[in-house]
Amino acid sequence: MDILSKGTITDVPGILAAGISGGIKKDGKKDLCVIYSAYKANSAAVFTGNNVKAAPLTVDMEHIRNENTQAIVVNSGNANACTGLEGIRNARKMTEVAAACLNLSPQEVLAASTGALSIQLPMEIIVPGIEKACSALSEDGGHDAADAILSTDTCNKTIAVQFELRGRKVTIAGMTKGSTMVHPNMGTTLTFMATDASISKPLLHRALVKGIDDSYNMISVDGDTSTNDMAVIIANGASDNTMINTEDKDYEEFCRALDFVCTELAKMVAKDGEGSTKFIEVKVRNAASRLDARTAARAVVSSSLVKCEVFGSALKSSTVACALGYCGAAINPEEFDIFVGNDEAELQIVKSASETDYNKDELDSVLSGDFIRISADLKAGDHCAVAWGCDLSYQYVKANAYLM
Amino acid sequence: MDILSKGTITDVPGILAAGISGGIKKDGKKDLCVIYSAYKANSAAVFTGNNVKAAPLTVDMEHIRNENTQAIVVNSGNANACTGLEGIRNARKMTEVAAACLNLSPQEVLAASTGALSIQLPMEIIVPGIEKACSALSEDGGHDAADAILSTDTCNKTIAVQFELRGRKVTIAGMTKGSTMVHPNMGTTLTFMATDASISKPLLHRALVKGIDDSYNMISVDGDTSTNDMAVIIANGASDNTMINTEDKDYEEFCRALDFVCTELAKMVAKDGEGSTKFIEVKVRNAASRLDARTAARAVVSSSLVKCEVFGSALKSSTVACALGYCGAAINPEEFDIFVGNDEAELQIVKSASETDYNKDELDSVLSGDFIRISADLKAGDHCAVAWGCDLSYQYVKANAYLM
Repeated sequence: MDILSKGTITDVPGILAAGISGGIKKDGKKDLCVIYSAYKANSAAVFTGNNVKAAPLTVDMEHIRNENTQAIVVNSGNANACTGLEGIRNARKMTEVAAACLNLSPQEVLAASTGALSIQLPMEIIVPGIEKACSALSEDGGHDAADAILSTDTCNKTIAVQFELRGRKVTIAGMTKGSTMVHPNMGTTLTFMATDASISKPLLHRALVKGIDDSYNMISVDGDTSTNDMAVIIANGASDNTMINTEDKDYEEFCRALDFVCTELAKMVAKDGEGSTKFIEVKVRNAASRLDARTAARAVVSSSLVKCEVFGSALKSSTVACALGYCGAAINPEEFDIFVGNDEAELQIVKSASETDYNKDELDSVLSGDFIRISADLKAGDHCAVAWGCDLSYQYVKANAYLM
Repeated sequence: MDILSKGTITDVPGILAAGISGGIKKDGKKDLCVIYSAYKANSAAVFTGNNVKAAPLTVDMEHIRNENTQAIVVNSGNANACTGLEGIRNARKMTEVAAACLNLSPQEVLAASTGALSIQLPMEIIVPGIEKACSALSEDGGHDAADAILSTDTCNKTIAVQFELRGRKVTIAGMTKGSTMVHPNMGTTLTFMATDASISKPLLHRALVKGIDDSYNMISVDGDTSTNDMAVIIANGASDNTMINTEDKDYEEFCRALDFVCTELAKMVAKDGEGSTKFIEVKVRNAASRLDARTAARAVVSSSLVKCEVFGSALKSSTVACALGYCGAAINPEEFDIFVGNDEAELQIVKSASETDYNKDELDSVLSGDFIRISADLKAGDHCAVAWGCDLSYQYVKANAYLM
């Protein structure tokens, strides 16, 4: 599998995209994005587990049940959430305007929104904005499109990979955004992916759910699951590979590449968490079940105390042990081990539930970096999981207290 | 029911207490506490739901299973958690030393510790400290004792109430501590209560579990459930009331007073949460079940975004709606209402899932205070619950990043 340098969604043959400034964001930044497949495609999507769903998700769930998605229209600067029936009418209108421009039925279009909640969309500028974005669609619009879906993110987040299926070159690429309200459950932050693979709709859905589960569902910035989370993948078959319609070797190969894309995109979100100064990876092994491993990894990466201590380069073994203890996962309370490291070094700081005599200078050196890996061995079974997050800084508090 | 001015645990007849400086805390503050009942007592206790339990809790669970508690010895400045077998030996030693001074069996003594984790107790100063504290026991040592159990708390936390049972005056009093790692589950932060009521051990236990469930189990400072949480009540029968041994009117009266004591103590902990500048109460009504009501109230009071927004006096209705949506409680997504207020005023900010046209100045005025009540009507049933917490400030991050 190859990772394309500066790869983006328009690296997928047959995928066009555009990102323009429509005037929704007051600072003039790009805020309208359209992604379009020139070929008929199969599609799959997952949506937030939040019971309070943003208006576009209500519309999208209906659309993708009835039709395959061939275009996605996205605005940033306004989340169209907690906006009642008017919000739903506006989301529907977004799909209708894009459909008219692209000669599709509205049901072949999905809408997505991100930004401030509880404010009605300014449709008088969104309608002409969508028309402008549709006419700007191009084969190299991927990076503009990725810019146009950002909210408080500090950078755009894209990836493209290529691999072979029976001699045919296949591409999977995607873009994502997310900075606060990041604690995905079933759905995700906004994630749009495309591939030129030919794959049946049920298998595409299964591959997406699986890919998201070990990536987006394992990241947390602040424990707050958004009302707007969604992930979509469009598979337009342009690579002309033999259609994947059973769980064979081709399907496994496709999943391996899709899992990689989902994981890399999810890590970009965790790394760019609001106010983040350090990126945290938590690996849990020897848990009693897959659920226990996932629960324990997410508990450590979500702990406010762990996050503050990482911010201050002052992580305590006992804070990690405390989170492993309260999360509900089975743990051998007299035998568990904890390690802290990065890509160069690793120190065992807890052995058999007691702190080791580790070298304090070495620990300080690991903690002073901007990537921290915490590993825990629960000594309770043979399941493992990995979760990703970031530290909790003054800047997170400042931004979310609106003290900017 | 009367609330005693500056009431404390030694307002209970037959209860003596002491708090001294034993040298565990480096700043010379009080750090050793002994509470003692001059009369034989019934006792009940609940302990943390954290699977990683501090050493004293392991010892205490054995002691209270076998004997009624007549004395409690507590140190602050060191939590004796994540300390392995040596920690358990030290906790046992604490009960033995106090028992020898007070002419009790060690099983009649409970030990508790709070402070830094993963460090062995300095027994060479703790042993003489306990002996000194036992010889300092007095009928007016309640406030000294309450001071000696504090860690990063900014004030001591005590209460005493009096009420009548069939013409007999009965007192219930208690002390508590807690500032970080506050998100109790089954047990609590450290809480020590006493009463001169005569009540059977099974009913005392039932009353304690019930009292804790609607008070300590409904507060959160940071979502981190401590390894050291415990709540104990000693009932020494000194009021000479008719022994309560069925769930009669006397039992109900006793529970009403105990619930009040637990709730007031728990609120003191939430109010004094680390770095707290504002106290938050969340009331949820018309939930589909008691569990849903509790889950929703705790989700809102625990949300990092809600807490940051309250810190900045910038609470958004959509952030509250988002937390109500992701917590898993059933919610009528088109009908729910949200209110924000304090003891003087209340504004409806969401009606039928959409933001109302509330007066922004009035909302600013409510949010500028140091007490915020958020109420939500889920329109899904008829159950209600209340939870308490505090805002998330720079100071919380600073303290827990060890940047003091």
